Amino acid sequence: MPVLQEINATHITIFGGSGDLTKRKLIPALYNLYLEGSLNPKMKILCLGRTEMTDENFRKLMKAGVDEFSRRGKTIKKEWDVFAKYIFYLTADFLKPAFYKKLNADIKTFEKEVKTDVTKLFYLAVNPQFFLPISDFLHAQGLAANKDLCRIIIEKPFGTDLESAQELNKQLLKDFDEEQLYRIDHYLGKETVQNILAFRFANALFEPLWNRNYIDHIQITVAEKIGVEGRGGYYDHSGALRDMIQNHVMQLVCLIAMEPPVDFSAKEIRNKKVDVLHAIKKMTADNVHENAVRGQYAAGNIEGKKVPGYREEKSVTEESNTETFAALKLEIDNWRWSGVPIYIRSGKRMHETISVITIDFKPVPHHAFPAAATENWQPNRMVMNIQPDMGIRLRFQAKKPGLEMKLSPVDMTFDYKQAHPSGLPEGYETLLLDAMQGDQTLFMRADQVEAAWEIVMPALTAWKENGNANFPNYNAGTNGPEAGEALIARDGYSWLMIPFNEKL
Amino acid sequence: MPVLQEINATHITIFGGSGDLTKRKLIPALYNLYLEGSLNPKMKILCLGRTEMTDENFRKLMKAGVDEFSRRGKTIKKEWDVFAKYIFYLTADFLKPAFYKKLNADIKTFEKEVKTDVTKLFYLAVNPQFFLPISDFLHAQGLAANKDLCRIIIEKPFGTDLESAQELNKQLLKDFDEEQLYRIDHYLGKETVQNILAFRFANALFEPLWNRNYIDHIQITVAEKIGVEGRGGYYDHSGALRDMIQNHVMQLVCLIAMEPPVDFSAKEIRNKKVDVLHAIKKMTADNVHENAVRGQYAAGNIEGKKVPGYREEKSVTEESNTETFAALKLEIDNWRWSGVPIYIRSGKRMHETISVITIDFKPVPHHAFPAAATENWQPNRMVMNIQPDMGIRLRFQAKKPGLEMKLSPVDMTFDYKQAHPSGLPEGYETLLLDAMQGDQTLFMRADQVEAAWEIVMPALTAWKENGNANFPNYNAGTNGPEAGEALIARDGYSWLMIPFNEKL
Repeated sequence: MPVLQEINATHITIFGGSGDLTKRKLIPALYNLYLEGSLNPKMKILCLGRTEMTDENFRKLMKAGVDEFSRRGKTIKKEWDVFAKYIFYLTADFLKPAFYKKLNADIKTFEKEVKTDVTKLFYLAVNPQFFLPISDFLHAQGLAANKDLCRIIIEKPFGTDLESAQELNKQLLKDFDEEQLYRIDHYLGKETVQNILAFRFANALFEPLWNRNYIDHIQITVAEKIGVEGRGGYYDHSGALRDMIQNHVMQLVCLIAMEPPVDFSAKEIRNKKVDVLHAIKKMTADNVHENAVRGQYAAGNIEGKKVPGYREEKSVTEESNTETFAALKLEIDNWRWSGVPIYIRSGKRMHETISVITIDFKPVPHHAFPAAATENWQPNRMVMNIQPDMGIRLRFQAKKPGLEMKLSPVDMTFDYKQAHPSGLPEGYETLLLDAMQGDQTLFMRADQVEAAWEIVMPALTAWKENGNANFPNYNAGTNGPEAGEALIARDGYSWLMIPFNEKL
Repeated sequence: MPVLQEINATHITIFGGSGDLTKRKLIPALYNLYLEGSLNPKMKILCLGRTEMTDENFRKLMKAGVDEFSRRGKTIKKEWDVFAKYIFYLTADFLKPAFYKKLNADIKTFEKEVKTDVTKLFYLAVNPQFFLPISDFLHAQGLAANKDLCRIIIEKPFGTDLESAQELNKQLLKDFDEEQLYRIDHYLGKETVQNILAFRFANALFEPLWNRNYIDHIQITVAEKIGVEGRGGYYDHSGALRDMIQNHVMQLVCLIAMEPPVDFSAKEIRNKKVDVLHAIKKMTADNVHENAVRGQYAAGNIEGKKVPGYREEKSVTEESNTETFAALKLEIDNWRWSGVPIYIRSGKRMHETISVITIDFKPVPHHAFPAAATENWQPNRMVMNIQPDMGIRLRFQAKKPGLEMKLSPVDMTFDYKQAHPSGLPEGYETLLLDAMQGDQTLFMRADQVEAAWEIVMPALTAWKENGNANFPNYNAGTNGPEAGEALIARDGYSWLMIPFNEKL
């Protein structure tokens, strides 16, 4: 997020180094940062795993990972061979104190070698059950002591409900200060997500319209065609609300709705975002069923291929009531947004893979045009496509060419890829570099996490209490259950999910 | 402009029927209207000229005109042969009363034939010296008597200064009511010009920004590569201010700056437009030299070819002080626009052929972004390209893809042709149909013409008094004289003339 600064010498410890995330995301991201010259050459990437392995063998595995998963495609031998020398592997038992002495010694040795200040990153790419033990052991070894140089990065889930999140934060904060805690939400590292702030606050044009006087309603859809993809064991204890809504989608709501920041410091941006979460009207046990809808997919068709229902997925219980679709209607009770409904939804095995924000503007206050000219009249709409395609479009009315004055909607289009044809950095690249630089702007602060849990809690509670969800209630390849449509239809709207190549 | 209605049976008399306008514009426009089924089959097009000619020979000439000049390209025999039967030719001396008796008889015969109400259009495609005699003769024959069905269409120039325009209006209004007078400015029939109203008043998005709070300044450029093209005799008594600024450019100012109309009736639209003209601050003898600049081209290069200077053009006097370039700085003294300068210019033998309106917005009120992110920061800009390409673009700031937050300007684009790939009707098609329907919206009312003259009069007077203009002062193929640049540079701006395919 910030302007690039000199990067300190860096010692990165990746807990869970032999796991999928390291191979698919973290090492490719670090390699790309290296290729761009963004890293300090005084660097060590120490990957930890349970399996016995030599550095050489681990490097081979990582090369295969980069070859397969990097946005840049296959490695070039000459470049990789230099980078690979930064990677080391250590067999570790995260629950044994003895290992942390070894880790401490490794870091101390590196510090002596490089003879300069070293930023120490501890990346916890592990099951959440290991967060606290690792944090405690690091603290016990004095590895959390330097507030400026020691940082811990953790991956979601940050708790499974408000209480557990509060407890996790409380415990982590015994070992590390909030300024050392980097709760990563890779969604916030995406170019198009970051661009929401640029769009809103680097332009004089949009902010005057960005309020209840001009905006009618807002929709956010984060839809996926994929199912649980072998993550059934994890997902069956999570569900769409925890896995997508509480974090990714809620963060999009914050970016769209926040007040203009005074500056772009991490504190200020995170304050303004958490303000939005605090202003969201809390659902009650009475109205939660009106404002929150859940769904679970049955077998169906995706791109002409039959796919199994959720309950038939591996590691999912046969009578699972875990939701694979969730939709909420939110209201932000503040001066700017009062009366503007925000509809959000996320689901698996839906008809499209798309993340998109739609802002529908109010109609013109006065129709000066003759009735016959305005048959096909539609209010202004702004669409921000986040993935897979990235761009912003504006639907407006223009005169239809011809002898009469007839209006028809046309699109003004900005295509991110066309404007910037060179590749876009992935979220992990941005976020890892930010963590090295000590910029917390795009990471989640404790109060943000907790405030987001507070919003979804009434739904989680109600759904838990009402165990029988009548699942499955939508077919794979559709856009969710009927109740999801009803949630928005009741207010006279319908869900929008407009791919970038389709007319608004 | 209006929604299509049933068209009356129509008798069109074209004075100057053997002239260029008839062949290049009027007959092709009528033919296209015919092909689109927009005309009443009960129709007669009676063309008048001094030359002796048979109907058949005249039709052949017209066919050649359509083949060469129609936007649809060559005629198709079967279609043309049917249409051609509507065209008749009559040798006429416009200054002899006897001829008008003949004309009257012709119309009466037609009325008897078609046995229904007939709209009578008298199109004066003649030198302005004939306007009043023709008008008087028509009136004397009772051909102006039916206020609903008799209409007279006249081509600019509507006077050569305020006084002559007032006199012309006064005299015409002795014969015809204002509701029968159709002063044509073909520019107003252009799709993109009409679209300015649709854009502003069919969208809720733009009007809130369309005022002094958000708009910094406005520019209008109507530039041509061509010189006087054999029209030197006429042009040398006119000049850029009379030929382009007083009419076309001033009308664009009205469309951009007018208040929202109550409805789209001709009266309301023309009222709102003339309000703008009345609100434009009048130049005085003291400040006219600061706010009005003239130029005349010397020989130069256009697209690599040598072209002569204006004083070397045919029928232009050797020491002509007629301006081929004019630029004005305008201020609209009303609540909406106070303090927003409007710079307008038009010239011949300029570097490009382009008509374009640029609206520059004010900077953001507060720069929240770090200074280094905003190196390349530019305020929002809206560009309306009118010709040759047609579209609307919006320049805004977006995050430049990459690891740091850097802003860079990008364009959101609406391309009229891409959205509506079928051909666009020409201004004359729209306007002829409007005249047949009795819709005056896109025609100039007497008070509009006079108000526009009032605005340019101080410049005309000053330039006449100061006979020695030090011409020529710009080379063909450049963008006008240095004084033109100075006019806008003094306020810290520079002229914009951005073709549609160039980045804003």
